[in-house]
Amino acid sequence: MNRSSALFRGDLGDANCPSRAVLDHLSSRWGTLVLRALLGGTRRFSELRREVGGVSEKMLAQTLRALERDGLVERTAYPVIPPRVEYRLTALGLEAASRIDGLLDWIEDRVPEILRLQQAFDARLP
Amino acid sequence: MNRSSALFRGDLGDANCPSRAVLDHLSSRWGTLVLRALLGGTRRFSELRREVGGVSEKMLAQTLRALERDGLVERTAYPVIPPRVEYRLTALGLEAASRIDGLLDWIEDRVPEILRLQQAFDARLP
Repeated sequence: MNRSSALFRGDLGDANCPSRAVLDHLSSRWGTLVLRALLGGTRRFSELRREVGGVSEKMLAQTLRALERDGLVERTAYPVIPPRVEYRLTALGLEAASRIDGLLDWIEDRVPEILRLQQAFDARLP
Repeated sequence: MNRSSALFRGDLGDANCPSRAVLDHLSSRWGTLVLRALLGGTRRFSELRREVGGVSEKMLAQTLRALERDGLVERTAYPVIPPRVEYRLTALGLEAASRIDGLLDWIEDRVPEILRLQQAFDARLP
């Protein structure tokens, strides 16, 4: 997929399509969890760190910046002391987050069954 | 989340919940693309390699094994010469793949807009 030509639709089957980078942002562990947290409304950085268990400050900052660059998250810095920075979904981000939320809800619902299947799989190994 | 206690529902916000590992399998670049390819029906290994552009033999084998262990993909080896191995979605895998397909379709539709937003973001950088 040539970045300089007009792109009408991505093709994720094509290793060179720029949609692959978007998939990486959206489907990374932290990307999915941050987008879902923002479905709950505007969040400050520290609130996101608390809500997304285990994410480091560095990974959260990187994740938010990639999502902001993709136009999915809007960052607003208020000129107050101490500085206050808030993040929220754009209209485009809301579309993505809704789809991700459906997948994440499904995982949470099905993980007990998946754990049983994993144990059965491991028990069959020689 | 204690693996030995009965788990009723996962919590992806919890860094120690086993649902996190399932999220990693389902939302990895190759996991998403393999599940989507299998929505098209049963596939041989070589067919998947062709359909999922850029995946190495090793990464495809690892991805398929994780999805098989999660109970999302069924592997059938036919005792013929040369050996023939086929992969298909289980009922559980079909549920996951349908949700992922919705997200991937959205990315392919929206990537032209996202690329324009990325360029606008980069142009604002000092």
